[in-house]
Amino acid sequence: MTAPPAETAWLLHHVLGFEAMAEADTAAVLQEATRTAEGVLAPLDRDGDRIGSQFVDGAVVTPPGFHDAYRAYAEAGWVGIAANPDHGGQGLPYVLALAAFEPVSSANMAFGLCPMLTQDAIALLEAHGSPDQQARLLAPMVSGRWAGTMCLTEPQAGSDLAGVRTRAVPDADGRFRVTGQKIFITWGEHGMTENILHMVLARLPDAPEGSAGISLFAVPKLLPDGAPNGVRCLSIEHKLGIHASPTCVMGFEQALGELVGPANRGLPSMFAMMNAARLGVAMQGVAAAERSFRRATDFAGGREQGGGPIMQHPDVRRMLWTQRALALGGRLLTLYAAMHAEDARGQLLIPVAKAWCTDAGVEAANLGVQVHGGMGYVEETGAAQHLRDVRITPIYEGTNGIQAITLLKRGLLRDQGAAVAALLEEIAAADYASPALLHAVDTARTAADWLRRADPRAGEAGAAPFLQVIGTLTAAWLCGRVLAHGDAPPAAHAAAAVFVDQILPRIHGQAAALATPTQALVDTTAIA
Amino acid sequence: MTAPPAETAWLLHHVLGFEAMAEADTAAVLQEATRTAEGVLAPLDRDGDRIGSQFVDGAVVTPPGFHDAYRAYAEAGWVGIAANPDHGGQGLPYVLALAAFEPVSSANMAFGLCPMLTQDAIALLEAHGSPDQQARLLAPMVSGRWAGTMCLTEPQAGSDLAGVRTRAVPDADGRFRVTGQKIFITWGEHGMTENILHMVLARLPDAPEGSAGISLFAVPKLLPDGAPNGVRCLSIEHKLGIHASPTCVMGFEQALGELVGPANRGLPSMFAMMNAARLGVAMQGVAAAERSFRRATDFAGGREQGGGPIMQHPDVRRMLWTQRALALGGRLLTLYAAMHAEDARGQLLIPVAKAWCTDAGVEAANLGVQVHGGMGYVEETGAAQHLRDVRITPIYEGTNGIQAITLLKRGLLRDQGAAVAALLEEIAAADYASPALLHAVDTARTAADWLRRADPRAGEAGAAPFLQVIGTLTAAWLCGRVLAHGDAPPAAHAAAAVFVDQILPRIHGQAAALATPTQALVDTTAIA
Repeated sequence: MTAPPAETAWLLHHVLGFEAMAEADTAAVLQEATRTAEGVLAPLDRDGDRIGSQFVDGAVVTPPGFHDAYRAYAEAGWVGIAANPDHGGQGLPYVLALAAFEPVSSANMAFGLCPMLTQDAIALLEAHGSPDQQARLLAPMVSGRWAGTMCLTEPQAGSDLAGVRTRAVPDADGRFRVTGQKIFITWGEHGMTENILHMVLARLPDAPEGSAGISLFAVPKLLPDGAPNGVRCLSIEHKLGIHASPTCVMGFEQALGELVGPANRGLPSMFAMMNAARLGVAMQGVAAAERSFRRATDFAGGREQGGGPIMQHPDVRRMLWTQRALALGGRLLTLYAAMHAEDARGQLLIPVAKAWCTDAGVEAANLGVQVHGGMGYVEETGAAQHLRDVRITPIYEGTNGIQAITLLKRGLLRDQGAAVAALLEEIAAADYASPALLHAVDTARTAADWLRRADPRAGEAGAAPFLQVIGTLTAAWLCGRVLAHGDAPPAAHAAAAVFVDQILPRIHGQAAALATPTQALVDTTAIA
Repeated sequence: MTAPPAETAWLLHHVLGFEAMAEADTAAVLQEATRTAEGVLAPLDRDGDRIGSQFVDGAVVTPPGFHDAYRAYAEAGWVGIAANPDHGGQGLPYVLALAAFEPVSSANMAFGLCPMLTQDAIALLEAHGSPDQQARLLAPMVSGRWAGTMCLTEPQAGSDLAGVRTRAVPDADGRFRVTGQKIFITWGEHGMTENILHMVLARLPDAPEGSAGISLFAVPKLLPDGAPNGVRCLSIEHKLGIHASPTCVMGFEQALGELVGPANRGLPSMFAMMNAARLGVAMQGVAAAERSFRRATDFAGGREQGGGPIMQHPDVRRMLWTQRALALGGRLLTLYAAMHAEDARGQLLIPVAKAWCTDAGVEAANLGVQVHGGMGYVEETGAAQHLRDVRITPIYEGTNGIQAITLLKRGLLRDQGAAVAALLEEIAAADYASPALLHAVDTARTAADWLRRADPRAGEAGAAPFLQVIGTLTAAWLCGRVLAHGDAPPAAHAAAAVFVDQILPRIHGQAAALATPTQALVDTTAIA
C-alpha cells in the first residue's frame, strides 16, 4: 500500500542527482521505513480513523496501539532520522528523511503528524536555540521521549499571524510566563510521550504591534521537576479526517517558557522552519495519492464485472494511472524542491510543491473513491478515509491560496521574474524536450509575463492557476527525465508518460484562464 | 442557502425558452419550494448528518424530525408535483419539477432522496404499469402515503445489471414470489410512510441468460391486508455522507409481487425511467454546488482577516465565483437537457449532465471547504458535510465512467457523430458567439472526429475527457445566452462571465489529453 522503495531510490539517484549516499544504502533506508510503515503503522490506520483520539476528562486518549507504535517508531530512530548526531540523531540527509516519510504517511497519515511536528520543533531548536537549549531540549525530542508541537494560530487571527495576542511576561531566571489560547494545535496533547515541548508564538510586554513584535517560546507540558506547567488542552476538534490526530485548543495560563532566538524575531525563525514543514505536507499529499492508488488498484484487479476485472476497462485505467502519475509527479517535484531547499530554485518551488502535491493528493484520493464505485462510498472499504484524511493538506501549513500568493509575490514579482525565467530556460534546454514540453514552456512564459504586467488584483486572481502551471510543468520536466532514461523501472516509465500526455496539457487552460481576469474576480463588491 | 428562485425562473424563461407557464407562476412555484426547503428541510440537515439513520433491531430509525417533514412535504404536494392529476398529481411540467427539486436537495440532500426515488417509481408505473396497477398503486405514492424504491444492484453484479440473480416464481392470482438480495437500496426501509413499494429487477424461471431475461416487479413492504411481505432490511451501510438516507441491504424471501410491463423487458422499462433519474442526480450536483457556494460566501463575507473580510481577496473570489459558475452552468445544462428529454439532443446530453454536474458538485463543495480554511475541516461548520454528501453523486445512477462510455458509444459512434455535429453547429451559429467559444467548438469538433476514428480502446480511454469537453462547452454556450441578454440578473451575468473566461478554457487540455492515448491506458497488463 506504499510506494516501491527501490523505485523511489532510483528516482533520487538517476533522476534527481542525489549522491550523498550509495543507491543501495538509500534503498535500504527506504525499505526499512516501508517495513515499519506497513508492519507497525498501517494496521492501526483503520481503527485510528474509526475510534479516533478522544477527549475524556481533560485528557486526550489516543486510539489502540498508538502508544506502542510511537515507542517502536522512535526507538528505531525515525524521529531523529535527520537530526544532528550530537543530540542523538542519525544525521541522514534531509532529502532522504523526507523520502522515508512518504511510506509512513501513506500507512497512517494521522500517526505521522506526531513525529512530523516533533521534527519541525527539532529543526527550530537546531536553527535558533542557544547551545544550552540545544543541550537540554534536543536529545529527548530526537530520541522520541518527548514530542513537539507548533502553537501559532489563535481564534481571532487564522492565517494572519500578525494578529497573535498571546502574551509572554518575564519571570525569574530569564524565563517567561506565557498566557493565551491557541487553536488547531496538531497533537497538542497526548500521553504517547513523557513530555511535550510546545513552540509558541507570543508577544513580549513592550513588543511592537504586528508581525515585528512576535517572539518564539519553548513551553513544556511538564516542568523539569515533573510538575505540570500552566498548559491545558481545552478541547479537541471533530474533524472530517485524521481522526487519530488530536487537533487541540490549547490554553496557556502563566505557563513557564523560555525564549528561543532573539526577542521579536519569532516570525522569521518560524519562517525558516516553514520550508521543511511545507515539504513535509507536500509529501503527505504524495503519500495519500500513492496509498489511494494502491488500494484502488487492488480493488480494480480483483473486482470482476462483465467477464473480467474492471482494471481492464480503459476508463478505469485512466483513473488508476492518473493517480499513479500524480503521485510520481508530486514525488519528483517535492524531492527536487527539497534538494534545492537552500537556493533560489527551492525558494521558488517549495510553495509550489506544497500546494500542487496536496491538490494532487485530493484529486488522486477522489479518483480512488470513484474506482471503487458504490464500495468507495462505504467507509469499511477505506478509500473514503484517504480522501477525508488528505483533505486537510491543502489547508494547513499555509492554505494553498497563500502558497499561490507567495509564488506570485516572492517567486515571480520580487525578482522581476528571474527565478521563473531561469527555471523555464532550463526546462526548454533539456535535450529530451518534446514539442509538447516546449509548447508548455511557451505557455508558462507567456503567463509569467502577463502576471508581471498585470494589475495587482488581477495578478492575485491568477495566482492559483499560475501555481498549477508551474507545478505541472516542473513535474512534467522531471517526468521527462524518467522517460529519457534508458533504464527506468517500467511502472515509473509508464506513469511518467501518462503525466506528460494526460496531465501536462491542463496548463494551457489554466494559463488562458489567468490571462482573462473576469471583472467579478477583481472587484470588491459583495457576492450573492 | 439555496438558489434565488427568481433567477432560476428567469433562466428557464429567457435562456431556455420554457413557455409552458407564465414566468410569474414558475417563480411562484420555485419560491414555494424554496420556502419549504429552507423552512422545513434545511433545519434537519445537520442532525440528519450527525445522528443519521440507525439500524436498530431490524428497523431503520430515521433522524429527529424526518417523519413530520416527510408528511408536510407530501401533503404540500411536492412528491406528486409532476405526476398525472388522474392519480392525484399536480401535473406540472417535468422541467419545473426538476427545477423545484434543486432547493430541496440543497437544503437536505439525504431527505430529498426519498421523494426522488418515489418519483422514479411513479414514473416507472406511469410508463409501464397496467391500468389496474396504476389505479391501485399510483395514488398512495403520489400522495406520499407510500414511498418507492429502486431495487437493482446485487452483491455479485455491481454496475452490470445483466448479472442479476434474484428469482421470481409464478404464484396464485398472476402474482409472483420474489427471492434474492439487493444492495445499495436508497431509503429501502423506514417508517416515514405507511408502506413502501419496491421496484425490483428479477428473473423469471425460464428467462434467457443475461440482460434479455430480466423482468420488473412491484413488491410492497406490506400486503394489501396489512400483513408483512417477505421483504426485510438486513443492514444499512456506514457511508461517507448522506447519513440520514438509509442505504439498505434488502432481503426478499418469497415476497409477493406483481410483474410490471412485459416479461423479460425489465431493463428497457428501467432504462426509460433512467433519464429522469439521471437528471435528478445531475440536479443534486447542482444543488450541492449552490449550497456550498452560499455557505462559503456567508463565511467569507463575515471572516475578517488583515483588515477586511476574506471575500475581498481575489484568490478567495476566484473560488467563490467558480462555485457559483459551476452551479449556474450545471443548472443550465441540466434544465436544457430536461427540456429536450424526448429528442436526440436530450439523449445526447442527459449522460453528460449527470456526469458533468456531479463532478462539478464535488469540485464546488471541495472549494467550499477550502474557502473556510481550517474551519472547513471541522465538521461543526457544515462545509465538509456538503463534500461528503455530494461525493455519492458521481457514483450512483450509473458511475460517471459509465455515462462517459454511453456518450461515446450511443451519443457519438452510433449515429456517426450526427447528434454531436448538430450540437456543435448550433453552438457555432450563435449570434453572440465569441472567438473563445468558436475556438472551443473547433476543439470539440476535432476531439469528436478523433474519437470516431480511434481504436476502440483508445476511444474508451478518451471518453471521460470527451464528456467534460461536451459538458463544459454546452454549459458555456448557454452561459453565453445569459451574457447576450440585455436584462440578466447581475449575479447570473457575472457567474456566466466567470464560466466562459475561467472554466471553458479547460476543454483544450482535455481535448489534447484524449487525442494522446498513452499506451498504459489502452493495454491490458496489470498495473503496479
